[in-house]
Amino acid sequence: MRTIFTAELSLLAGDLIEMSEHVQIAIHNATKALATKDLELAQSVIAEDANLDALEHRVDERCVLLIARQQPVGLDLRTLVTSLRISAGLERMGDLAQHIAEGVRRAYPDSPVPASHKEIFRDMSAAACQVSDLVVELLKTRDLNVAAQIVGDDDTLDDLHAKAYSKLLATGYKGGTQETLDVALLARFLERFGDHAVNVSRRVVYLVTGDVARDSSAI
Amino acid sequence: MRTIFTAELSLLAGDLIEMSEHVQIAIHNATKALATKDLELAQSVIAEDANLDALEHRVDERCVLLIARQQPVGLDLRTLVTSLRISAGLERMGDLAQHIAEGVRRAYPDSPVPASHKEIFRDMSAAACQVSDLVVELLKTRDLNVAAQIVGDDDTLDDLHAKAYSKLLATGYKGGTQETLDVALLARFLERFGDHAVNVSRRVVYLVTGDVARDSSAI
Repeated sequence: MRTIFTAELSLLAGDLIEMSEHVQIAIHNATKALATKDLELAQSVIAEDANLDALEHRVDERCVLLIARQQPVGLDLRTLVTSLRISAGLERMGDLAQHIAEGVRRAYPDSPVPASHKEIFRDMSAAACQVSDLVVELLKTRDLNVAAQIVGDDDTLDDLHAKAYSKLLATGYKGGTQETLDVALLARFLERFGDHAVNVSRRVVYLVTGDVARDSSAI
Repeated sequence: MRTIFTAELSLLAGDLIEMSEHVQIAIHNATKALATKDLELAQSVIAEDANLDALEHRVDERCVLLIARQQPVGLDLRTLVTSLRISAGLERMGDLAQHIAEGVRRAYPDSPVPASHKEIFRDMSAAACQVSDLVVELLKTRDLNVAAQIVGDDDTLDDLHAKAYSKLLATGYKGGTQETLDVALLARFLERFGDHAVNVSRRVVYLVTGDVARDSSAI
């Protein structure tokens, strides 16, 4: 019985890794499409999001079935409930990558990023991609050092987000309204992507350490 | 055993109603603060959000304990898992009310809503408040007609959100960047509030009807 449960938990862990890899591809492609005004790539990110939603549904089903069949208690049970929260967080990260791709599609054949903000978005994109790489690594290795790195990248995203807004509000900024809206929303999506990555990583830390205090923020 | 479980499920349902009532007060006060530039009221919404987070935590704990002690299967188990999703959705709705209150605080002693958008925000605020009233009612009555009304109000919020953006982008709009950002973000918070209400109501419909197809969107 225990062996079957362990095998099932391993499949569940595999599903979460698969979800994180989808998120990784989505944010890499969305930010690449943003940098290169690649409409086709943006469309593919938008189309792919349904697969991530389906994966989330599979994780939910697997958790419910596992609870029903194995009637776990203690740590096993908390693993399953926490897995549900992690899958919800990964699904939200995928949504945010999709929103970025939608921004690219809306502005096409122009770029939604004005020259004034090219550098900030290049840096935000790099940080978001790195965060997604780290989330995959964290789910694979459960290495708590990786969780700390995710928090660091999220701080970078927060700082860049604030910088993007400051530039919009600075005297002498001459962008139009559409441009202002594009910058504000895209910067927000990238910043939120980092927030959700931190939430996911806190959940993983909780799985590893059982430390509730570190799991204070909800997804 | 069954009697205890039924009593526990009833406590859980009570917790969700209590959460929805917190959300109701939060959005009513946040939108009132928005309309009246009431800093003190805005501060109270921001301070109160911690109580909603604590309630979400209590729901989580209750679900986990119930699963562990009662080892439910079938419908009972799905009720518990769905309750976790509902609590996460309500918590997000509270966050959005908090974000609106933060917008009021940031702009104080001015209003973050320019004259051009007063009417739209009045209507969005009314729709968001009505949505929150309906969510309380739905959780209390499990009446599917109420769920349909929530979808209707969400459509209203979507339309008004689009209208708020159109007005920003219309020729002749003369607002500054800060004003544009305020309008864009506040309109988005109210629109997202409606989205989460629809997600919560879909979960409740799922509890009542067991119809998975109606539960296609993730919180």
